[in-house]
Amino acid sequence: MEVYKNPLPEDWQRLISRPSFDVTELFDTVRNIIEDVRQNGDAALIKYERLFDKADLSGLSVSETEVAAAEQAVSSALKAAMQQAAENIRTFHAAQRFQPVEVETCPGVWCRQTAVPIERVGLYIPGGTAPLFSTVLMLAIPAQIAGCSEVVLCTPPRKDGTIHPAVLSAARLCGVSRVFKVGGAQAIAAMAVGTESIPKVDKIFGPGNQYVTAAKQWTSLSGVAIDMPAGPSEVEVLADATCEPSFVAADLLSQAEHGRDSQAVLVTTSEDVARRVLAETSRQLEALSRKEIAEMSLKNSRIVVFDKMEDAIAFTNSYAPEHLIIATENYRAVAEKITHAGSVFLGNYSCESAGDYASGTNHTLPTSGYARSYSGLSLDSFVRKMTFQELTPVGIRNIGPAVETMAAAEQLDGHKAAMSIRLNSLK
Amino acid sequence: MEVYKNPLPEDWQRLISRPSFDVTELFDTVRNIIEDVRQNGDAALIKYERLFDKADLSGLSVSETEVAAAEQAVSSALKAAMQQAAENIRTFHAAQRFQPVEVETCPGVWCRQTAVPIERVGLYIPGGTAPLFSTVLMLAIPAQIAGCSEVVLCTPPRKDGTIHPAVLSAARLCGVSRVFKVGGAQAIAAMAVGTESIPKVDKIFGPGNQYVTAAKQWTSLSGVAIDMPAGPSEVEVLADATCEPSFVAADLLSQAEHGRDSQAVLVTTSEDVARRVLAETSRQLEALSRKEIAEMSLKNSRIVVFDKMEDAIAFTNSYAPEHLIIATENYRAVAEKITHAGSVFLGNYSCESAGDYASGTNHTLPTSGYARSYSGLSLDSFVRKMTFQELTPVGIRNIGPAVETMAAAEQLDGHKAAMSIRLNSLK
Repeated sequence: MEVYKNPLPEDWQRLISRPSFDVTELFDTVRNIIEDVRQNGDAALIKYERLFDKADLSGLSVSETEVAAAEQAVSSALKAAMQQAAENIRTFHAAQRFQPVEVETCPGVWCRQTAVPIERVGLYIPGGTAPLFSTVLMLAIPAQIAGCSEVVLCTPPRKDGTIHPAVLSAARLCGVSRVFKVGGAQAIAAMAVGTESIPKVDKIFGPGNQYVTAAKQWTSLSGVAIDMPAGPSEVEVLADATCEPSFVAADLLSQAEHGRDSQAVLVTTSEDVARRVLAETSRQLEALSRKEIAEMSLKNSRIVVFDKMEDAIAFTNSYAPEHLIIATENYRAVAEKITHAGSVFLGNYSCESAGDYASGTNHTLPTSGYARSYSGLSLDSFVRKMTFQELTPVGIRNIGPAVETMAAAEQLDGHKAAMSIRLNSLK
Repeated sequence: MEVYKNPLPEDWQRLISRPSFDVTELFDTVRNIIEDVRQNGDAALIKYERLFDKADLSGLSVSETEVAAAEQAVSSALKAAMQQAAENIRTFHAAQRFQPVEVETCPGVWCRQTAVPIERVGLYIPGGTAPLFSTVLMLAIPAQIAGCSEVVLCTPPRKDGTIHPAVLSAARLCGVSRVFKVGGAQAIAAMAVGTESIPKVDKIFGPGNQYVTAAKQWTSLSGVAIDMPAGPSEVEVLADATCEPSFVAADLLSQAEHGRDSQAVLVTTSEDVARRVLAETSRQLEALSRKEIAEMSLKNSRIVVFDKMEDAIAFTNSYAPEHLIIATENYRAVAEKITHAGSVFLGNYSCESAGDYASGTNHTLPTSGYARSYSGLSLDSFVRKMTFQELTPVGIRNIGPAVETMAAAEQLDGHKAAMSIRLNSLK
């Protein structure tokens, strides 16, 4: 981790840059896969599963027997932990329920905004070294609270054609309708266009590798929505002399272990903290099973020291981190000044892993500076807002003449006529 | 307009299909423009304005003198109409202000969700035959209420290098920070990447032609967000024997005049209504100044007759229209059953043009069936939600063990360690 002292604003751009990858370069590959799935349906999916996941599947759907076996295989300790996490996630997301807005904007003109669930949603859970059952909770619980009528989940099978039991158990816990054994770009294609087994959905959620991301981006160009653009995970710790350096080091490492391209940044007003966190990071790194990954990603990582907290805050808002831990005095006052971040962790005891699993907030968050323009996942992501309006004769008389004037000025006679015919009927 | 009687569900797909255009075919063209703007900034924009809009510009920024002249040029009647419309739009969008959510998900674990404005937003207003100042109101008023600190607007100049006064007057009325004379894909490129004159923004809003749409889609793949995918405008009128056929005909025509590819659909439970609306449409068409456009788009349009209202409602939800007018008995009860539509107009007096201009609802809505997965524009579109969490030592003791168990099961030791180090410090 390189250390930068009071960098000038003109150097910030370089310091806040992320390891970037242009997914558009993969578009040709994923387009071919999507076209193949559109034309050949399940057969194409089974072919790709053999090719990419080395799994020989006779069918794509996870059976009730498989789910029941998974329930047996998951330890009761893990089940209890998932239950507790699910409870908190449920509590926080249920509190986000939308209250309809209704106003009479002027006499006789009523406007109303309501939320309706997105009908069919598709959740993607990556495979890979570890089973990401926590992401099942984060995607499926808000879908359930929103009232989505169909919640399908795709996840790549292991080589023996099975799905990790913890993923199936989490899916059952959160009311997922159906689980399918399919991963990668082909899974996204299946949910975007529909096959014999897998229904077409209205919106696709979830993380994945670059092919998954490219497929999500491409399919979002026609007919399906996606949650947000995804990039490598990242954390910033904003710390002053009151932080606990060993905690900060643990937080940086918990991010660094995610992947080689993860970023962990410490922004601090204390050179002493910088030194001690560096030392602690080296020390704690040795104990990690994913040491090599963490070591690699620490090379993308930085420590930035500012004399003034206000500069540290300005730098933080420029960086717009996915996760921000504020380990400072008066951390709530500091948090008030944060405008760009996905999720914020307040004080020495609020570690990122609390929010990754069990505090109740969602862990699907905007990366790569997208916190400038995107929200993290919330109940909102699973509903749509609709507006309604009702005009009475009084309302028509009230706004009719303004509508006529504006429509005429926009040279849209038909728009004007639709109002005039009603105004005239009231004369 | 062709008439279909009780079509079978298997034929619905064909009946709800839209005139489609694949914007991805334009990606090569818009990529070149975007790259040119990235490299050559204002010079590229001035070049494209000469080429595409036939305007010879010395600068891109609209001056204070030009705005003052525009204020003089707009009639006081139009100004008053815009004021009245703005008032209603403001009232309805201000009522959508987000109330922070705060809950203690379990003892010692506090979660909070707040909204912050998107800092820099870019609004695009198309040029063309008519000045779409109403869209300025629809985009800029929610941006202003949200508290976006920079609101820039791009719109193509006329051949003499000026902007229509009504557009400038609307921009001033709604607190737009700066207006630039640039249109098409080059305007989107400028707001996405930034030039000497035009700031890079975080999110781009507004309608446009296929090049604008393609440029928005392409730039949304990296670094900037967009409001929603855009397609040709559309309306459905859902009517029974209680409707006023002459009103319905006027509503269909007000949609049809938008463009050759607009769609106007009547779904009714009354054959008599179908006949009378057809006759009225032909009669009223003659009076329209945009008769030829409307005639052309009526060819894409349909009348669908169902015996049962429940089938008519199911068909409506399949179609997922941008605008839906419900001209039936008990229209509120019918509206309760509508799950897929952008904006809904209730009863005989609620014409679409009321919402297009002045009722208070937003007129930027999902087209082409995107009402299945996207919301129309609202205050929400101009804010981001952030989450915060704070754990006390009690909170750490409460959820710490669950976090440890889950992190271990996901084979993320570092995540576990970040929690363990805190738990241990409390022993």
